[in-house]
Amino acid sequence: MIQPLPDLLIQPVVDAALAEDLGRGGDITAALIDADARLKVVFAARREGRVAGLDCARLALTRMDPAVQFEALIHDGADAAAGAVIARAEGNARAILTAERTALNLLGRICGVATLTRAYVRAVEGTKTRITDTRKTTPGLRALEKYAVRCGGGISHRFGLDDAILIKDNHVAACGGVGEALRRAKAAAGHLTPIEVEVDNLAQLEEALAFAPNVILIDNFSLADLRSAVALTAGRVRLEASGGVNLTTVRSIAETGVDVISVGALTHSAPVLDIGLDAV
Amino acid sequence: MIQPLPDLLIQPVVDAALAEDLGRGGDITAALIDADARLKVVFAARREGRVAGLDCARLALTRMDPAVQFEALIHDGADAAAGAVIARAEGNARAILTAERTALNLLGRICGVATLTRAYVRAVEGTKTRITDTRKTTPGLRALEKYAVRCGGGISHRFGLDDAILIKDNHVAACGGVGEALRRAKAAAGHLTPIEVEVDNLAQLEEALAFAPNVILIDNFSLADLRSAVALTAGRVRLEASGGVNLTTVRSIAETGVDVISVGALTHSAPVLDIGLDAV
Amino acid sequence: MIQPLPDLLIQPVVDAALAEDLGRGGDITAALIDADARLKVVFAARREGRVAGLDCARLALTRMDPAVQFEALIHDGADAAAGAVIARAEGNARAILTAERTALNLLGRICGVATLTRAYVRAVEGTKTRITDTRKTTPGLRALEKYAVRCGGGISHRFGLDDAILIKDNHVAACGGVGEALRRAKAAAGHLTPIEVEVDNLAQLEEALAFAPNVILIDNFSLADLRSAVALTAGRVRLEASGGVNLTTVRSIAETGVDVISVGALTHSAPVLDIGLDAV
Amino acid sequence: MIQPLPDLLIQPVVDAALAEDLGRGGDITAALIDADARLKVVFAARREGRVAGLDCARLALTRMDPAVQFEALIHDGADAAAGAVIARAEGNARAILTAERTALNLLGRICGVATLTRAYVRAVEGTKTRITDTRKTTPGLRALEKYAVRCGGGISHRFGLDDAILIKDNHVAACGGVGEALRRAKAAAGHLTPIEVEVDNLAQLEEALAFAPNVILIDNFSLADLRSAVALTAGRVRLEASGGVNLTTVRSIAETGVDVISVGALTHSAPVLDIGLDAV
Amino acid sequence: MIQPLPDLLIQPVVDAALAEDLGRGGDITAALIDADARLKVVFAARREGRVAGLDCARLALTRMDPAVQFEALIHDGADAAAGAVIARAEGNARAILTAERTALNLLGRICGVATLTRAYVRAVEGTKTRITDTRKTTPGLRALEKYAVRCGGGISHRFGLDDAILIKDNHVAACGGVGEALRRAKAAAGHLTPIEVEVDNLAQLEEALAFAPNVILIDNFSLADLRSAVALTAGRVRLEASGGVNLTTVRSIAETGVDVISVGALTHSAPVLDIGLDAV
Amino acid sequence: MIQPLPDLLIQPVVDAALAEDLGRGGDITAALIDADARLKVVFAARREGRVAGLDCARLALTRMDPAVQFEALIHDGADAAAGAVIARAEGNARAILTAERTALNLLGRICGVATLTRAYVRAVEGTKTRITDTRKTTPGLRALEKYAVRCGGGISHRFGLDDAILIKDNHVAACGGVGEALRRAKAAAGHLTPIEVEVDNLAQLEEALAFAPNVILIDNFSLADLRSAVALTAGRVRLEASGGVNLTTVRSIAETGVDVISVGALTHSAPVLDIGLDAV
Repeated sequence: MIQPLPDLLIQPVVDAALAEDLGRGGDITAALIDADARLKVVFAARREGRVAGLDCARLALTRMDPAVQFEALIHDGADAAAGAVIARAEGNARAILTAERTALNLLGRICGVATLTRAYVRAVEGTKTRITDTRKTTPGLRALEKYAVRCGGGISHRFGLDDAILIKDNHVAACGGVGEALRRAKAAAGHLTPIEVEVDNLAQLEEALAFAPNVILIDNFSLADLRSAVALTAGRVRLEASGGVNLTTVRSIAETGVDVISVGALTHSAPVLDIGLDAV
Repeated sequence: MIQPLPDLLIQPVVDAALAEDLGRGGDITAALIDADARLKVVFAARREGRVAGLDCARLALTRMDPAVQFEALIHDGADAAAGAVIARAEGNARAILTAERTALNLLGRICGVATLTRAYVRAVEGTKTRITDTRKTTPGLRALEKYAVRCGGGISHRFGLDDAILIKDNHVAACGGVGEALRRAKAAAGHLTPIEVEVDNLAQLEEALAFAPNVILIDNFSLADLRSAVALTAGRVRLEASGGVNLTTVRSIAETGVDVISVGALTHSAPVLDIGLDAV
Repeated sequence: MIQPLPDLLIQPVVDAALAEDLGRGGDITAALIDADARLKVVFAARREGRVAGLDCARLALTRMDPAVQFEALIHDGADAAAGAVIARAEGNARAILTAERTALNLLGRICGVATLTRAYVRAVEGTKTRITDTRKTTPGLRALEKYAVRCGGGISHRFGLDDAILIKDNHVAACGGVGEALRRAKAAAGHLTPIEVEVDNLAQLEEALAFAPNVILIDNFSLADLRSAVALTAGRVRLEASGGVNLTTVRSIAETGVDVISVGALTHSAPVLDIGLDAV
Repeated sequence: MIQPLPDLLIQPVVDAALAEDLGRGGDITAALIDADARLKVVFAARREGRVAGLDCARLALTRMDPAVQFEALIHDGADAAAGAVIARAEGNARAILTAERTALNLLGRICGVATLTRAYVRAVEGTKTRITDTRKTTPGLRALEKYAVRCGGGISHRFGLDDAILIKDNHVAACGGVGEALRRAKAAAGHLTPIEVEVDNLAQLEEALAFAPNVILIDNFSLADLRSAVALTAGRVRLEASGGVNLTTVRSIAETGVDVISVGALTHSAPVLDIGLDAV
Repeated sequence: MIQPLPDLLIQPVVDAALAEDLGRGGDITAALIDADARLKVVFAARREGRVAGLDCARLALTRMDPAVQFEALIHDGADAAAGAVIARAEGNARAILTAERTALNLLGRICGVATLTRAYVRAVEGTKTRITDTRKTTPGLRALEKYAVRCGGGISHRFGLDDAILIKDNHVAACGGVGEALRRAKAAAGHLTPIEVEVDNLAQLEEALAFAPNVILIDNFSLADLRSAVALTAGRVRLEASGGVNLTTVRSIAETGVDVISVGALTHSAPVLDIGLDAV
Repeated sequence: MIQPLPDLLIQPVVDAALAEDLGRGGDITAALIDADARLKVVFAARREGRVAGLDCARLALTRMDPAVQFEALIHDGADAAAGAVIARAEGNARAILTAERTALNLLGRICGVATLTRAYVRAVEGTKTRITDTRKTTPGLRALEKYAVRCGGGISHRFGLDDAILIKDNHVAACGGVGEALRRAKAAAGHLTPIEVEVDNLAQLEEALAFAPNVILIDNFSLADLRSAVALTAGRVRLEASGGVNLTTVRSIAETGVDVISVGALTHSAPVLDIGLDAV
């Protein structure tokens, strides 16, 4: 039960993408087709994957012509088999062909992020560990990509710099230590502001635990150290692991007992899901 | 000698990315650091790759504080060895740490596209074939990603729907054939409007050649058919191959003698180049 | 069969024009009229001309009240006799009166450009020469004005600085000659990038022909030199004439056999077509 | 002593014009020139005219490169002889050539409006009549065009629908008469809201005078009727004449004694002033 | 009979407010509710007040879901008793709950300004004096707040810096006196430009009267001086009083016979009207 | 040590406010002053208060003329005595006078919020209770107003709908109870997402405590019930009180031992701090 993003957040992204494509002359190839020709198309998954972002496709098509009919057949957060029809649309041929690339560019990217997330989520299935994203998102697409992670079964990390304090190594260095940084954070935080701190070794972890932050990010720990960290923490605060995470390593990391694993690749390097638009 | 994109085209992308990150409260972690602390950092390539997009990093840093000094050491279009310092910056610590993720998100993506392009360009080295991109770009980043392709040694395909007529299979179907579509295109085109048509087999190729378009896109041809196409065309129009292109297949395709190979993956599935910002 | 511009490109222009007129207080004169008064109006051509831009009028009226009914009677690209009714509208009186000036300002300008273009097109009727525009357009209205030129029977030149290489005298000077400039252009251009070069005399023309650009712009040539240029070129590349073009000279220029004549006045100095909105 | 428009109002117009020209690829012709080539140019009037809008040229050039030096030699509101150098600039060659067309498009239009206004102002010299503009401005350029009218020696009419009540024929009809319309206007107006009413004959004029509006617009009156109107009004309210105004008729109209003549053509049909950018 | 502001002016304010609230993740609490749950709500006045700005509430709700039904029961410019239902809405529960705060934030503020204005208007009831606003409005909300003043029974002062000349003490000082400032204003003003001047004492008032400006602003006069000013002016120009105005003093000021009293507090310090959204 | 908001977040607010004031004609009164006149001014507090938002004043002045010198004398978060000079500026007289109202409008509001917050903070001094804001902010000014609360000594509640789950009475009703709503929230929340729930009585409080949310909002409790709530909770989760809070009641509420008190009036009904700009 994933909450869709409101059209108000998606439409500007779609409009900007369409405008980028239409340039100053509009679609000079679609103009070769009869103005009242109609087209019936399906969005078909070329490969198996997790669906996410259908609203982008709908908004691209209907922006070119509000009379285009769009129907989703597989909903965001569900899986599409290879060859499956995800959605169908019908309407003015020029409108559909003009919007095609924008619709597919967005849909493919968002499904791509969801599908990669799903792979990580499946890899840790059976453990209690959850998969989360980072701020390594595509500029302009953060809301959509973090939504895609949720569609893939992951959870959202903070959305930006203002909704949680996350003390990283450079902040620790600038403050003069994990303890001093957390002391300042505690003093600055509101009653609802989450605090997370990155630690690079077990000594820092112990230092951090004394301040009871909401989450401790244990970065680039060996599996052995991860296990020690989990033991040392004993459930007092949530532990987030990061660094060296890929589909081969993620399960071992999860099995150390960390609560969350954050994966930058979910949003910075997910290949698109290959989706085609076929006339029917 | 690649022409940099003007700041006027890049700054809005950078500003939107920063605003997306700053949200409504600004960087509440940087606030823990002394307001007048200074930082000296380098942008270091974690892996070998082609540099592109340094202006994004510069504009992100200087938007947070115009007094930040930024100096590129390896320029767009040149290669960075693993570990190489690409650029350095110095200035207010808060400003630099706040802009860090935006700078890296953009830089990593653009270098990623350039690096992947370079791999394709190198794979066809020694042939006369050139590598080009498609419209399968990230919404909002088309100008930057096509610039990255140029930095990687590729050439730019059309920028959008208005700067060339590109008749694809759906247009052919709607017009009733390659010939009729080209007839309409010739009638509609201005004196400077390039015309390209997609053909799916040799018969269509012959039909297309009669109209002397600027480029013929031969999509998903076997190597044998590509060779026949080259022979049949005999240099009268440029041939662009697409479909089934990857780093394994691209050289064989090039060796058939086609003029250009277009690769969607350059922009839709390039992994980021891993670049880090290190305090020095 | 002119492809209309998508609403997505026109609506922002219309909205900005309405906002410019509404200021911070809205239409304080329309407020004198009863809130539910209705009005039936026609857009009537005061003088004969070529119609273009009716979508602007429709979008202005319906933005003020989506319930306003708008019907075009003479379509873009067709001619209106003096006194002819181009379109009619019916709906809330305040909405229509508030939008009136914005609708007429846009419609009058766009019809004006189309009508002036038509005059040039008619003046060269019977020759093979086509009329095209330049980048001397009104800031903010380029897409609409180039559309108007197409409605007037002309063809579109490049839309901006990025969709064709056009080497002008200053570039030639900076590169050190027509030949060197073209050599650089050939090296820089993509497979689909059109190349045009401006030449000022027959010697430069010959130098340019050796590089087979797509188009050669022969600027400010005498009729005799134009004829020599056509003979010398012998159809190998397209010739575009410019300079000293007006309704008196254009036919003689066309009769020299040039392919295209570009006319800055189409967009920089077209008088508006006088169109009125009459209550009926 | 004309107040220049603030950069805050001009820069968005300039930026939009540059962006419209740069498209998604930037200036691919300027890229042929050496990146560090420098250029020294002058803006030269090809024909005699009134200068206005130099800030547009300055902002276009400096947006492409803040290091470009720009110096106005003839200031807004002054006259340039044919051939006169209006301004000079020096800096990076690519930056200047890229901005050239935007600078000239804006400058030529604004000087064009100022020059046409000056012609009307000169035509009524020696009378007490002043020349004013209308809302028939180019969408997006209202502030600049009304500024140009002031540079040409004219005065500004209302800027939009919210800064004065102007009751036109359709409002009169909808209200049921000039008197009733003015009665409503008086009731609705703030203490600082100017009220103007359009009258079509002397009977309406008398009806209007009873309400002492700030201005009465006498539309399409014969010269005889204009004189009667002036006599009847006897200086009690200002009279603005409109309709049938051109450079041939304007002086006769002025000599009837009206206070102001409004001329739509100032902004809707002014030919550009031909200004060129010459390398020096 | 107050003219509503057009949606074109309100929607951007509403959209910006919604976007500010939705951030990058949308409403993560509404997501807990069933996606198709429905809600029926009323906007109820918690305290007695003057209604204004219902369009804001309507546009907030329908932006989240166009299918939400919204019906105003008490219209802008009318009074709501404590507990009265101002409007009702029905539709998707998530949409309504997400838009609730934006709708109430805008509605409460606008009603607040209208209600405070009404208090001032009532305080001077029976005198001929009218209440007006100032430019001390909330940045971004000027059009709405001045509309609220009209709904409260007040009149609008100038909307900004461009629709009237208002010479204040600093201008007087910079020009070298009231007379010189007015002389310059008369020379600069268009035929429809209102002129107002601030005077600080009776001597300046006399100096100003000689120039017959449209309005004289008498700032911080004692009641005795106000009476002298009214007597001295004798109806020749309108007098606007300002300074030291509050609900206790306003009637005495009005009774001196001034035409208008301007009150900055109307827009800079009006408490919101407490309005709640109740499920029914 | 309050972190200032980055200029990137403030400048758009300032620019929009200036543009709203400049309209289409700019400042027609400032034009009466000599173009090169200079002015030296101070921003003086007319009443005692807490300073916040000086960056707004700086950015307003320097946007009109980058050469204006601005110096803050009392910094954000410090107190100004009545009559104290907060900042001084010097530069072009027209620029300063044009920006004056925008600068004061923003500064006055932001200081107003800070000053009111300070009053609440002082009222609870000596208790452990902190004061926080709500989402009842001025549309468009949320970031600035929440910053003002921090300058006043308060803490920031969530910034919008996406950075914390806050289950209110309508959500509870729609979910079918406090427990079920919290169960859903726990399932939906990320590892860093704070969860808060509103309870209306002690029974609900107990139900909520079982789920260990981050914060429980106890709305409209009597003092006795607040004390019971504190006792019952025994420090296990943070308690936030709201409802019926004003400067008279806030201390008694704090003395019950709640952790936080949220006050809508801080941002929805703070009177501006009276600040003037005086020429010196």
